Amino acid sequence: SGLVLLIQGLGLTAVILVAVWMGHFQGGFAWQEDPAKEFNYHPVFMVIGMIFLYADAILAYRVFRNINKLYIKVVHGGIQLGALIFAGVGLKAVFDSHNLVEEPIPNLYSLHSWIGLLTVILFGLQWVCGFVAFLFPKVGFAGRTIYMPHHVFWGLAIFGLACCAALTGITEKALFSNGKNGFSYSKLPSEGIVINCLGLSIVCLAAVVFYVVTK
Amino acid sequence: SGLVLLIQGLGLTAVILVAVWMGHFQGGFAWQEDPAKEFNYHPVFMVIGMIFLYADAILAYRVFRNINKLYIKVVHGGIQLGALIFAGVGLKAVFDSHNLVEEPIPNLYSLHSWIGLLTVILFGLQWVCGFVAFLFPKVGFAGRTIYMPHHVFWGLAIFGLACCAALTGITEKALFSNGKNGFSYSKLPSEGIVINCLGLSIVCLAAVVFYVVTK
Ligand code: HEM
Ligand code: HEM
Ligand code: HEM
Ligand code: HEM
Ligand SMILES: O=C1O[C@H]([C@@H](O)CO)C(O)=C1O
Repeated sequence: SGLVLLIQGLGLTAVILVAVWMGHFQGGFAWQEDPAKEFNYHPVFMVIGMIFLYADAILAYRVFRNINKLYIKVVHGGIQLGALIFAGVGLKAVFDSHNLVEEPIPNLYSLHSWIGLLTVILFGLQWVCGFVAFLFPKVGFAGRTIYMPHHVFWGLAIFGLACCAALTGITEKALFSNGKNGFSYSKLPSEGIVINCLGLSIVCLAAVVFYVVTK
Repeated sequence: SGLVLLIQGLGLTAVILVAVWMGHFQGGFAWQEDPAKEFNYHPVFMVIGMIFLYADAILAYRVFRNINKLYIKVVHGGIQLGALIFAGVGLKAVFDSHNLVEEPIPNLYSLHSWIGLLTVILFGLQWVCGFVAFLFPKVGFAGRTIYMPHHVFWGLAIFGLACCAALTGITEKALFSNGKNGFSYSKLPSEGIVINCLGLSIVCLAAVVFYVVTK
């Protein structure tokens, strides 16, 4: 339906905006040979995994309505696994960027990092619970029926948490970059517009996902 | 029920933590005679209005179950009006703190300020729509029934938006204060713990409010 397309559009917009921010304005990407640029993979991979793929996996049940149920389950669970892998690489990138520099930066001090780590841990648990409950033959129909509303509630709650992690992360990176390399946030140059539109696209995406799932 | 008490506890915790942060660690409060300290009213009033009172108003329908319906409506709408007034004073405080200093700070450049302004505008519109639909005798039963699900969806969506505004605002203020007056966020001193716990209390409050309303 139109709303599914809207969600695709907003998710793609977010991925493109975060890639432009990091790739163009923040100097591009590198791996461990240049930890400062390795950081730039963090926002991109987290948005691809915890926002774009996460939203798509939730939608799988709305898009493939009349298809084999097992097939949809594998698509839904498979995309969620992909999301978890992107998140893992994105976390590796930010921890490296703190640990591999001359004067290491402490880990896990910020509100963003607390919300972010909580998000990924709960997401991993939800994946294991979803896999065991819906793909293991041993769990009977009754068990699945009892677990289902919890699976849906936590699936949405963790998605909301992921959006909060992204918004606080965007705000952090915007202020860390402020005053460096000629970027002045309060003058709202094009980089600032990209930053704010990235945040708004995630806010709108979250609103539409909640609407589609709860209606 | 227990969940209602939990929401009260989390809301009060957030109000106390933000008051301790601004009142104790950030030097206390003043009005226009000292615009830097006038800023400190902004976080406190926004959390009281857009988090604590907003959550309480939503709960009014869960707490007063067997009471006169008109009475609950007046309580619900009245608390929401109180929330809007606190938000208005909180916005006045932050705009003053930008405009009344020697070198004025631009307004409305940050992602936080965009999300925040959007929140308050939508909240004001929702208040007018709720008032017209539910307290004006002219709107018949049919109109109310059609509007109700939209009122509930938007009421929750705007609450989610308010929480995102608060979390990005907290992140901004934490980084603006970083390195000033001996505060080093990455060493996680007691001020940093207060900041992160304030954010987590808002995250938990949001999760419980969504659970109570959607279950
Ligand atoms: C949406 C999912 C996201 C999650 C789950 C997440 C998670 C995390 C975690 C766990 C850390 C701590 C790393 C450490 O302590 O070494 C971190 C750090 C960081 N993240 Fe993210 N992140 C996300 C998105 C973003 C985005 C979109 C941005 C920026 C555009 C961002 C910017 C940062 C920055 C600047 C740091 C380093 C400062 C700090 O530790 O707070 N994050 N993130
Ligand atoms: C192998 C792993 C998983 C399986 C087999 C699975 C299975 C399911 C099933 C059967 C539904 C019901 C959809 C419906 O009838 O509307 C569902 C819904 C949902 N799942 Fe999963 N799930 C898995 C993993 C995950 C993970 C890891 C998450 C998120 C962290 C997640 C989030 C959701 C959400 C948000 C919904 C609600 C979708 C809707 O109602 O449209 N699932 N899942
Ligand atoms: C929850 C509801 C909140 C809303 C709706 C909100 C709204 C706003 C708005 C509209 C502005 C722009 C003012 C201007 O441009 O002159 C602003 C600025 C600001 N707010 Fe908030 N705020 C909220 C909560 C918070 C909290 C809890 C904090 C900090 C703990 C905070 C910190 C700031 C800071 C540092 C600024 C100035 C920098 C900027 O313009 O982004 N806000 N807020
Ligand atoms: C004079 C103004 C208002 C009136 C008369 C009013 C009336 C109502 C009514 C009749 C309900 C149905 C509750 C139920 O049956 O569960 C309701 C629910 C709700 N209202 Fe309002 N409302 C007003 C203003 C607002 C405002 C300003 C907001 C938020 C911005 C808001 C947010 C909500 C929410 C989130 C719910 C769902 C509560 C629940 O299901 O527990 N309302 N309101
Ligand atoms: O990943 C990063 O770490 C630093 C910051 O943590 C410094 O405290 C910074 O600017 C990044 O982009």
